[in-house]
Amino acid sequence: MADAHDPAPSAPHKPADGDTPLAMIIGGGSIPVAVADAVTRRGRRVVLFPVRGWADPAAVGTFKHYWLRLAQAGFFRRHARAEGCRDVVFVGTALRPPLHTLRIDWLTLRLLPRIVRAYRGGDDHLISGIARIFEDHGFRVVAPHEVAPEILMPAGPIGSRMPSERDRADIAHALALLEATGPFDMGQAAVVAGGHVLAVEATEGTDAMLARIAEMRARGRIAVPAGTGVLVKAPKPQQDRRFDLPAIGPRTVEEAARAGLAGIAVVAGGSVVAEPAAVAAAADKAKIFVVGIPARAKP
Amino acid sequence: MADAHDPAPSAPHKPADGDTPLAMIIGGGSIPVAVADAVTRRGRRVVLFPVRGWADPAAVGTFKHYWLRLAQAGFFRRHARAEGCRDVVFVGTALRPPLHTLRIDWLTLRLLPRIVRAYRGGDDHLISGIARIFEDHGFRVVAPHEVAPEILMPAGPIGSRMPSERDRADIAHALALLEATGPFDMGQAAVVAGGHVLAVEATEGTDAMLARIAEMRARGRIAVPAGTGVLVKAPKPQQDRRFDLPAIGPRTVEEAARAGLAGIAVVAGGSVVAEPAAVAAAADKAKIFVVGIPARAKP
Repeated sequence: MADAHDPAPSAPHKPADGDTPLAMIIGGGSIPVAVADAVTRRGRRVVLFPVRGWADPAAVGTFKHYWLRLAQAGFFRRHARAEGCRDVVFVGTALRPPLHTLRIDWLTLRLLPRIVRAYRGGDDHLISGIARIFEDHGFRVVAPHEVAPEILMPAGPIGSRMPSERDRADIAHALALLEATGPFDMGQAAVVAGGHVLAVEATEGTDAMLARIAEMRARGRIAVPAGTGVLVKAPKPQQDRRFDLPAIGPRTVEEAARAGLAGIAVVAGGSVVAEPAAVAAAADKAKIFVVGIPARAKP
Repeated sequence: MADAHDPAPSAPHKPADGDTPLAMIIGGGSIPVAVADAVTRRGRRVVLFPVRGWADPAAVGTFKHYWLRLAQAGFFRRHARAEGCRDVVFVGTALRPPLHTLRIDWLTLRLLPRIVRAYRGGDDHLISGIARIFEDHGFRVVAPHEVAPEILMPAGPIGSRMPSERDRADIAHALALLEATGPFDMGQAAVVAGGHVLAVEATEGTDAMLARIAEMRARGRIAVPAGTGVLVKAPKPQQDRRFDLPAIGPRTVEEAARAGLAGIAVVAGGSVVAEPAAVAAAADKAKIFVVGIPARAKP
């Protein structure tokens, strides 16, 4: 299992079960394939369970995979066991589907009371409830960055630009805001410009929030000039870090540039960056900064 | 000045200067005219200064008025003094204009350093900075509900519906969230459904936030069924209550219904309701509740 050309000295946890293939239940975005590539490079086999409607069919083609419908717990358990998987990773963006759209298999039906209880809370509650169900069925739920630590955002800049003093004040303001909203189990992102909170993410997603700023700017609703303001993403203080860490990729950079921001700051070690080289290139092209920051601006 | 058919026992403050006409600098929405009507009914003359681009021309026609451009402080001071006004009210929705669009008169030019300093902070900072400038020029800045207490939201329901137990839990969750975001001088509204934060208002305004929920619902992005969720509006804990109290009107009710919510809750005595009878009618027609609540769900 040792990987000669990538010693990964920063790998914090060695999976206990590194000899078995890794089951990956994957949603949308480019993070899942980045994780699958990284795990494969480390010499471990992956078996993907892309979720229909969320995962990109073009992205999963080169890996062994079984398309999964939500609420098909029995299908997953059968195939994952047959493949010899014991560890399972959840990764990628998920949409919270209306309950009535689910096609429920027999195992899911038996689990339904537990799932419905979990469904009533916020995202964290739902996800950790579902993780416990997997664990009760003999799977070990691991974090993407446990099996592929290279996906974590490093400290410092990606690309050549750095935040100005004014940008750093906006970053500190946004971090304090995200700390205050953390207990409410909502979004993990905010945009602050010149000390003014332009947007806070709840359920709409980061891309939709950035599109809203671009649209307000086009309509003259934003007083600060273009090239001002920072998108800040941070994990929730109490969140189970096996799931849903804040993530950025090249597309985030493009959307931030379109919203007229000066840059992006994400918590180093607590966020995921898809395709860091492409992020750096996009940031330099758009003339914005992308920086990994400590979880608190001022310790 | 006494008003025989409206003794207004709840009027908390009697304007010291009730014998002079009231200058009203007015923005958008239906609140300004509701205030002007109420003040007139109480026997006091009003002189409106509708702001171009914000105020509705159709609404101001029956009152004495002078159209005002932003950054025309000299124009305002000249006409308000000539009319004998000493008290001034700011009321109605305002958009934060890009600085470069302002046409600045001589008095404003002299005041510019102070205005720019105020402009750098959040909304509260800007508004209270401008109020101090008016006061330095001999005007007294009063709250709309000081001169027209009947515009304040009463405690209890408007219309015939009441929040359910689940709605009350959502209201408490949203109030706690707004209390946490209060220090950040941002929006005064949030939508919570089944314990899940669907949206938080920053600069986009309540209507835009509700439109976003309607759109997410149409795209199947919201898991809770229609008829769930509450729009909650509350004043910021530290705000100067002479300005920008949260407000609702018949249009808010229609937008909330379109977003599939169960109802609207606003802080009684700390929010303004335009056209209460029309709000009650719209709420009953849309089958949603509108309720005035204490500032904290649980004291």
